[in-house]
Amino acid sequence: MRIEGRDYRTIWLDGDGRSVHVIDQTALPHRLTTQRLSSAPEAARAIADMIVRGAPLIGVTGAYGLALAVAEDASDAAVEAAHAMLLATRPTASNLRWALDRSRAVVLAAQLSERRAAAYAEASAIAEEDVAACAAIGDHGAAIIKELAARNAGRRLNILTHCNAGWLATVDWGTALAPIYRAARAGVDLHIWVDETRPRNQGASLTAFELQAEGVPHTVIADNAGGHLMQHGLVDMCIVGSDRVTSAGDVCNKVGTYLKALAAQDNGVPFYAALPSSTIDWRISDGVKDIPIEQRSAREVTHIRGRAPGGDIVEVQLTPDGSPARNDAFDVTPARLVTGVITERGVCAASAQGLGLLYPDLAR
Amino acid sequence: MRIEGRDYRTIWLDGDGRSVHVIDQTALPHRLTTQRLSSAPEAARAIADMIVRGAPLIGVTGAYGLALAVAEDASDAAVEAAHAMLLATRPTASNLRWALDRSRAVVLAAQLSERRAAAYAEASAIAEEDVAACAAIGDHGAAIIKELAARNAGRRLNILTHCNAGWLATVDWGTALAPIYRAARAGVDLHIWVDETRPRNQGASLTAFELQAEGVPHTVIADNAGGHLMQHGLVDMCIVGSDRVTSAGDVCNKVGTYLKALAAQDNGVPFYAALPSSTIDWRISDGVKDIPIEQRSAREVTHIRGRAPGGDIVEVQLTPDGSPARNDAFDVTPARLVTGVITERGVCAASAQGLGLLYPDLAR
Repeated sequence: MRIEGRDYRTIWLDGDGRSVHVIDQTALPHRLTTQRLSSAPEAARAIADMIVRGAPLIGVTGAYGLALAVAEDASDAAVEAAHAMLLATRPTASNLRWALDRSRAVVLAAQLSERRAAAYAEASAIAEEDVAACAAIGDHGAAIIKELAARNAGRRLNILTHCNAGWLATVDWGTALAPIYRAARAGVDLHIWVDETRPRNQGASLTAFELQAEGVPHTVIADNAGGHLMQHGLVDMCIVGSDRVTSAGDVCNKVGTYLKALAAQDNGVPFYAALPSSTIDWRISDGVKDIPIEQRSAREVTHIRGRAPGGDIVEVQLTPDGSPARNDAFDVTPARLVTGVITERGVCAASAQGLGLLYPDLAR
Repeated sequence: MRIEGRDYRTIWLDGDGRSVHVIDQTALPHRLTTQRLSSAPEAARAIADMIVRGAPLIGVTGAYGLALAVAEDASDAAVEAAHAMLLATRPTASNLRWALDRSRAVVLAAQLSERRAAAYAEASAIAEEDVAACAAIGDHGAAIIKELAARNAGRRLNILTHCNAGWLATVDWGTALAPIYRAARAGVDLHIWVDETRPRNQGASLTAFELQAEGVPHTVIADNAGGHLMQHGLVDMCIVGSDRVTSAGDVCNKVGTYLKALAAQDNGVPFYAALPSSTIDWRISDGVKDIPIEQRSAREVTHIRGRAPGGDIVEVQLTPDGSPARNDAFDVTPARLVTGVITERGVCAASAQGLGLLYPDLAR
């Protein structure tokens, strides 16, 4: 996507053919800076510290991390160690395991001397497939938006999204925001309600930044506000991304998604999850029971970073000294609350049957 | 209530018998400071700027504001002007209009020479009645908590609350927190989930401050987390306050309350609203349609204040320059989602019948 006239992806290979560059998402929206990742531990740290985040992007970063490890030491043991280290960074998103497993299989099947090339080729393939999947998600989702707009008789369509499932969460285009970008570029009159998405504020920082760069009208709201807006007819549709979807269609996504899905159901607002098939965990069906929910630092709740009047990025404390906090990073929206799942192959019901019809080759 | 061994109320008359002191709630939790209000415009500003907040407390502050106006000029015109100015500060809470109407009626019925004394006597009576009402709410609510604790067979009871409906929102004791204080003092093993309550963070700042001062175990969470905690059986009960309840039992409260009520219903968690009868607006029945929702400054969403590492209170910007924000301060939880209403006269169903049985003298 473009930022101030220049095309960006979130991750790209350096001219040296070895290290990778990523946009440092912890500095946004206030500063656009990049980081160079030159080793598997650096890639692991970038994922754990959320320099890069978003299920598809951490999958791609994981694959490049494995390639960086192989460039150092192509032995089976080194590959396994790097796989384990990278996998341990964040427990919830499916895509990380999916990408790491896929890359490992390719690498281990290759001759020792060809492993480095194979690892980079696979990471690059995963990245390119992600771009293509997101573009396809964009087209399938845009069709839903256009249909809704047609029924809306020209009135501006209000779409609510939670967290950031835009191009910054993927390699390009995004998942939840891809349909919005495609529809906006096709001339549909849209306005986006951007949940700020505490505690890390990926909505207020990343989604608002993306939408502004793309020129899509939007308004940042507190996470508390979406239900009220829906009660007053101010939301026509919700689209969110996902970190893991079960074979039965339960949608794990950034904490708070479930609350918006409940409000959407209570007010008859369609609620969609947009994701590539690499997000689907075909091994499990009960999301609330079986998806591990990452516990992040309490400090993300007790403190927040922002731009002080002088321009410095400052972290301030919000809570009284000594008051503990808890930070569950994700929640699970049961399939019954999800109107449909938008994938690279099309849109389906959030159910074992719906997903199975689209992915007969993957469903178990 | 006590802070570091000293008893406080949120508002009290100065020794001069004219001006009033209030705790400056915008400085909490980092600094405990007070402000002196010496005129009706100062009282109005304190309400509008949320130096004082909480429906019952702004009612009492309004009554003292009217007394301050009468001390200056006891004419009918001055009383009416002060009533209008104070009423215009915040549109949503019932208690402000209730207290102002009550004080005005008493003042206008008195001889000109007696109006000042009458106005202060009425403000003081409203304050004392609020303390008594909150204490009674505490006892009625504590009975529910004790019953739940007994059924819970000694396991620690987890109660979720939103915003601040503690003693800082009233003169003393609080509404939603009064039952918690009474039950905790009676030895019930409690733990409170404190929604931080963006955008103004009254949970993370005020409720956490109160609970810590009182020694009640608590954990601050992002507003997004409550549904997830309920899905995992970690919430036994919700108690919130209210700014306005309709005659049919719809509960208007800090924005985001509705989302927690939906999650409570979806997970079979009892959801109570605690409020004095001055919060009930007997003139209206449909909360979503008829309660005016205050629109506050977008800056409360785009910026946040906290304590910088050096100890200074700093306001930082969270959003990209130029991204607009919207700030609806309240939402309405339909009566169908409310398990019961805890008032000074007891607990009733959130319905016209329930409220009418408790308040046959007030219901229309």
